[in-house]
Amino acid sequence: MSADGHTEGSPLTRSVEVEALVRRTSAFVREHVLPVEDEFGGDIERAGGDGVRRDLQKAARAEGLLSPHAPVRFGGLGLGMVDRAPVFEAAGHSLFGPLAINAAAPDEGNVHLLAEVATQGQQEEFLRPLVLGEVRSAFAMTEPAPGAGSDPTALRTEARRAPGGWRITGKKWFITGADGAGFFIVMARTSGEPGSAHGATMFLTPSSAGGIEVGRHIRTLDRSMVGGHCEVTFDDLFVPDERVLGEVDRGFANAQVRLGPARMTHVMRWLGAAVRGHEVALQHVAERTGFGSRLADLGMVQQQVADNEIDIAATRALLVHACWELDQGGKASMSTSIAKTFGAEAIGRIVDRSMQLCGGLGVSDDLPLARLSREVRPFRIYDGASEVHRYSIARRAVHTATRQSGGSAS
Amino acid sequence: MSADGHTEGSPLTRSVEVEALVRRTSAFVREHVLPVEDEFGGDIERAGGDGVRRDLQKAARAEGLLSPHAPVRFGGLGLGMVDRAPVFEAAGHSLFGPLAINAAAPDEGNVHLLAEVATQGQQEEFLRPLVLGEVRSAFAMTEPAPGAGSDPTALRTEARRAPGGWRITGKKWFITGADGAGFFIVMARTSGEPGSAHGATMFLTPSSAGGIEVGRHIRTLDRSMVGGHCEVTFDDLFVPDERVLGEVDRGFANAQVRLGPARMTHVMRWLGAAVRGHEVALQHVAERTGFGSRLADLGMVQQQVADNEIDIAATRALLVHACWELDQGGKASMSTSIAKTFGAEAIGRIVDRSMQLCGGLGVSDDLPLARLSREVRPFRIYDGASEVHRYSIARRAVHTATRQSGGSAS
Amino acid sequence: MSADGHTEGSPLTRSVEVEALVRRTSAFVREHVLPVEDEFGGDIERAGGDGVRRDLQKAARAEGLLSPHAPVRFGGLGLGMVDRAPVFEAAGHSLFGPLAINAAAPDEGNVHLLAEVATQGQQEEFLRPLVLGEVRSAFAMTEPAPGAGSDPTALRTEARRAPGGWRITGKKWFITGADGAGFFIVMARTSGEPGSAHGATMFLTPSSAGGIEVGRHIRTLDRSMVGGHCEVTFDDLFVPDERVLGEVDRGFANAQVRLGPARMTHVMRWLGAAVRGHEVALQHVAERTGFGSRLADLGMVQQQVADNEIDIAATRALLVHACWELDQGGKASMSTSIAKTFGAEAIGRIVDRSMQLCGGLGVSDDLPLARLSREVRPFRIYDGASEVHRYSIARRAVHTATRQSGGSAS
Amino acid sequence: MSADGHTEGSPLTRSVEVEALVRRTSAFVREHVLPVEDEFGGDIERAGGDGVRRDLQKAARAEGLLSPHAPVRFGGLGLGMVDRAPVFEAAGHSLFGPLAINAAAPDEGNVHLLAEVATQGQQEEFLRPLVLGEVRSAFAMTEPAPGAGSDPTALRTEARRAPGGWRITGKKWFITGADGAGFFIVMARTSGEPGSAHGATMFLTPSSAGGIEVGRHIRTLDRSMVGGHCEVTFDDLFVPDERVLGEVDRGFANAQVRLGPARMTHVMRWLGAAVRGHEVALQHVAERTGFGSRLADLGMVQQQVADNEIDIAATRALLVHACWELDQGGKASMSTSIAKTFGAEAIGRIVDRSMQLCGGLGVSDDLPLARLSREVRPFRIYDGASEVHRYSIARRAVHTATRQSGGSAS
Repeated sequence: MSADGHTEGSPLTRSVEVEALVRRTSAFVREHVLPVEDEFGGDIERAGGDGVRRDLQKAARAEGLLSPHAPVRFGGLGLGMVDRAPVFEAAGHSLFGPLAINAAAPDEGNVHLLAEVATQGQQEEFLRPLVLGEVRSAFAMTEPAPGAGSDPTALRTEARRAPGGWRITGKKWFITGADGAGFFIVMARTSGEPGSAHGATMFLTPSSAGGIEVGRHIRTLDRSMVGGHCEVTFDDLFVPDERVLGEVDRGFANAQVRLGPARMTHVMRWLGAAVRGHEVALQHVAERTGFGSRLADLGMVQQQVADNEIDIAATRALLVHACWELDQGGKASMSTSIAKTFGAEAIGRIVDRSMQLCGGLGVSDDLPLARLSREVRPFRIYDGASEVHRYSIARRAVHTATRQSGGSAS
Repeated sequence: MSADGHTEGSPLTRSVEVEALVRRTSAFVREHVLPVEDEFGGDIERAGGDGVRRDLQKAARAEGLLSPHAPVRFGGLGLGMVDRAPVFEAAGHSLFGPLAINAAAPDEGNVHLLAEVATQGQQEEFLRPLVLGEVRSAFAMTEPAPGAGSDPTALRTEARRAPGGWRITGKKWFITGADGAGFFIVMARTSGEPGSAHGATMFLTPSSAGGIEVGRHIRTLDRSMVGGHCEVTFDDLFVPDERVLGEVDRGFANAQVRLGPARMTHVMRWLGAAVRGHEVALQHVAERTGFGSRLADLGMVQQQVADNEIDIAATRALLVHACWELDQGGKASMSTSIAKTFGAEAIGRIVDRSMQLCGGLGVSDDLPLARLSREVRPFRIYDGASEVHRYSIARRAVHTATRQSGGSAS
Repeated sequence: MSADGHTEGSPLTRSVEVEALVRRTSAFVREHVLPVEDEFGGDIERAGGDGVRRDLQKAARAEGLLSPHAPVRFGGLGLGMVDRAPVFEAAGHSLFGPLAINAAAPDEGNVHLLAEVATQGQQEEFLRPLVLGEVRSAFAMTEPAPGAGSDPTALRTEARRAPGGWRITGKKWFITGADGAGFFIVMARTSGEPGSAHGATMFLTPSSAGGIEVGRHIRTLDRSMVGGHCEVTFDDLFVPDERVLGEVDRGFANAQVRLGPARMTHVMRWLGAAVRGHEVALQHVAERTGFGSRLADLGMVQQQVADNEIDIAATRALLVHACWELDQGGKASMSTSIAKTFGAEAIGRIVDRSMQLCGGLGVSDDLPLARLSREVRPFRIYDGASEVHRYSIARRAVHTATRQSGGSAS
Repeated sequence: MSADGHTEGSPLTRSVEVEALVRRTSAFVREHVLPVEDEFGGDIERAGGDGVRRDLQKAARAEGLLSPHAPVRFGGLGLGMVDRAPVFEAAGHSLFGPLAINAAAPDEGNVHLLAEVATQGQQEEFLRPLVLGEVRSAFAMTEPAPGAGSDPTALRTEARRAPGGWRITGKKWFITGADGAGFFIVMARTSGEPGSAHGATMFLTPSSAGGIEVGRHIRTLDRSMVGGHCEVTFDDLFVPDERVLGEVDRGFANAQVRLGPARMTHVMRWLGAAVRGHEVALQHVAERTGFGSRLADLGMVQQQVADNEIDIAATRALLVHACWELDQGGKASMSTSIAKTFGAEAIGRIVDRSMQLCGGLGVSDDLPLARLSREVRPFRIYDGASEVHRYSIARRAVHTATRQSGGSAS
């Protein structure tokens, strides 16, 4: 665990250090984070928004649990993808857990992106404070129709050449964490037309720069993301050349750097939430009786419990495989698409069954299941809707099959 | 339509009168009700609670749309089960629609119950004002564990003999509409022990009677039910003999009178909500483009649209069959269990697919889908969880098959 | 039942005559047909092919059960679509039942087509002997790739003008019943190019005409269809003008006449097979014990039994609705597509669950379930694959939704 | 790979030796085995039964591919569980592949059992010739109702003490490979009553011993298993003490030794069959056109292709995890149950979708899909029906959850 991103031993057996970190993260979440989530029904704004984030991160910092995914040289714990899977899952047991250890979206993905493609100066200015929890960040890509959405090449926000830099104009929405973010990573078109898969560039900008307006929070099913999902308007925003992130016109390629790992860390976190739901349901069916039997001894209950276990195991297994590929330096496009698609759907099923197992209580706020069901639903849409991933998976499979005449798709 | 509950012609073709009523109900809902729902995000309390109910019902009364299910002699429109299906579905297009036409749960089921088993005096005192929308009512059966829940025979609330009546003590919860109800129908045990399928009795009581305490609202996924899902405590509540509803110790049998039709009207209303969701999704995919195509022309979109159509058609078909049996005077236990189980699951699938089809917007409050997904989820649990219905269906099927040696289960 | 195709009373209640016919058909199938099917494992060729067909039909004729769907004036019983549903389902209890009452594909659909579009002379020559069971017939439309398949407009078989008639050349396959058929209905292109939705014509030809070669039987999962699924080559086959069926260039439109009803009668027959499977499973779970319990009392067994009941009920309900529309004279494209798609998939699920419920015996030839699973599988592909129907359903739904601005898709 | 069962490196990356073995096995299967399977439609008896087995194994022996799972000291390749997964999957590409490399059920599981619990003498007499392909074997446990089936404790076959050994009487069925087996491993009750989870003992006996009668082959959906699924009667069969396998009364525990790995190798082999089906479908949709498009470019086709890829990846991932646990010496009851249940259902789905993708051809014998669909179906029942595994999985999950107060089910 000493060298960043290096996984010792087998991906199927955790090192002693990782095992200990998982245990400590679990204990921290149970003692410090879950009580806050439960008190405020998982609504981060009701719980205090950025204030509660700072409090929780302070506690996590004191326990040495902050930013497990971030490079050691910037103050993180340096975990590779395989190692962070169980840690993030443990954090995900609480909807506020990832935030508490500074591993929530979009900051966590932005840390990864900046560590990979930012210049040393950019890293000092933007990455280091992000890893330390001093600021939050936002990733401004998605646009209202007919702009960049499921299909990012529809990008319309424009950056025009200006002396010493670029001037950006455009409208974004569903920008998670925008309200209160210290800086933005902005995706804008520096060449080409909407529909072209080339010509996008990433820009770094402090939120204090003139020309950024954070608009309304778009209310969605989830309530646990600090800073909301906002509309953001860029009106002639100036970004100097030294804040271009990566190369000009290489924005789509750089987005891929962020994308694969970010998909997987999403699965890790939401899987933690689903596992919590499953555990709540297990306690319920183990304690309650009905129809002359303990609920846990009824066949239709057992079927749902077993299906939850199968979904949890399969999600974890696919996750480890994809993370292993990423740790080996691959793009892992196929395996991360598969793990994301299966995981997002499995997580939804697990929470839904858990809710069903708890009956009327399951849909009430007396248990966390109702809110978990709200929180996990968007994940089948965010980070690539299931349909988009299936489209990519199928295309790759057909491509592989036709390249090899009669060869294996595996 | 003149005689109560009489269906003219074929159950598959609507009479001219019913067709007109459906059209008028649709127009009323679109013009008067949907705008209110959309303004307040489907949250009835935010919209004004009982105040908005009175306003909407006043408008419906003016249009001659109030209480389509209630007997003509008490001021309703006298529709049988088959005829009310399309009317309730039309009302259900808005989450507030059923309330607006005074056909929401639990009042609608209580009307049916009182019309069937109440004495003439009870009908004048309780049924008539209920049909006219002058009061609301509640049905107090469900209890916290280990009391009456999925398994109603676990009933623990006790009614003890007292001079001239009964004294009731017990704790209920999830009592829909309790807060603000003008009267309660209370299920209490007059003989036998919890677990016995006999010994329950129904009582009518004004909410103003001493000994009724309406406690907290249990927050659940749904927000559209006026009066909440409440905890209610009966502490030595006195009910005089003339307010026993039906016969003493016949409470479980009478509950069946309410149950079959109430299941079906739930399906009608929620189906309306699902159909609205489907229509919203159809508009979305017909207008938006992505991946170089109108969304509606993409195969995976078409698959979900088609599955919605299939689920809508199958739910309607099962509903008509069960309603027809009820209109013929049967108990229709098998067909209503089947229609409820299939319908509740189909409705959930329809709303879920519609949400998926609308992408990020689908999980936002900019469209009604996110709230529809919250509202319809509990229906797989309320009114008999899917598991309980499947248990009943299977037992009947096996019973039929073994009675006829080798005979048909159909 | 006296006038052809007229349904008396409600589509949900059978007339006394239909009820009696169902009972007599069931008894006939149980006593005369099932023993033959079981003896030969549902393999019609092993059972004697056309010989056993003649024997069974002779018995059915003696009981007055032959050709329930055919017009009375040609010797049938004249049932409309709604009325034939329970009769065909009863026949379908045995894989040989439809053949026994002369209501098997493709003859049954051909009877319908000839009754609707043939001239009086053609009806005397081809329809009457078909109704009486004196000959069998085949419908020659499907072609090997890249010809007419799921997409019939790809039709390549050509009919060229010749003095007094047409000369047909082309290759067909999967022509059910071709081997031993007395006559063929041939779909060939009289104008336009492959891909055009116009220019097809239907021709009647005795199989004895020169230029018809019935090739190999394509072995498929099913074994119960007499005359196989054959390759057929037409080599300069001459058809005189008086044997053009319907008008020249109107072949695709006429195929629709056959298609809607033929889809529904397929569902009826296969539903009967599925119901038999369900009944076998019910007997099994009612009699066997395991894990200290009667199998029928185990929750996971009950779930599968209940799901079978739900699937049976929903298929029947959708079937009645579509048949009712057809009986009213509509094309019923939407409702027959829905009923076919749902029905074919439900039938597959029912048989699959029934097999699972019977364990090792279920996959053996000691019970009929293994063969039922083979027989019903192709139905998700034949008569329009599920994907093709979903494509049509979605297109209609979107079309309806966009025509009505914001209107109902129902 | 030198030491038996030792996995070098990561379970997620294959060693060079294993990779080469997989490639050679694939090539061997493609060149020598698939042509035989395809010629005889996957029917091992039509292909020559034991004769074709000997021929194929001779070829495999010449290539150094025989018995990859068997200990090196008996003539095998000594692969551990993780390593044999890709090799068995490669063999499974042909229904005859596992037999060709002497890794088919039940011999493969019997090799494992004998290697673990047999005495040295028993190994020389029974194991060595089995590894070398000189004989086949059978495992005689399953009995007709009410004997040992899904619930093995119902065991009724009795072994009574006799001078110098035991005398066994009882009736078995579904004994795979019994016809032609050189020896049997017989499970019989040496103490206790049917229903007791104790008192079973395993016996080794040459098939030439008096008192063994191999009865009829029970015809099932599958045709690829040499020696059939037979009824076997033991009538006072004498087994000397030195042929007791393992300890007396420890038969159920020893069956567990066989069970976990045998489940996994089943999944490996059938997964290979499913992958072949998927590849056939990929070729089909890549080559065919319809509706104005290459089939592979249609959304509903892509969805099915993607779901196949997801199911293949998840099955492989669960398999590796369970195998890794077994290689570490664990019983892996939970992980093998999960991998078996998911795998058996996923394999069925993959083959079913592949068949659907190929349309009419898919259900014909012109492609291997129809026979694959028959072959894989029983696997949801054999080796523990899905329902039995779900019951076990749920019980373990609830047990774990209640032991840890509030702890993790993972």
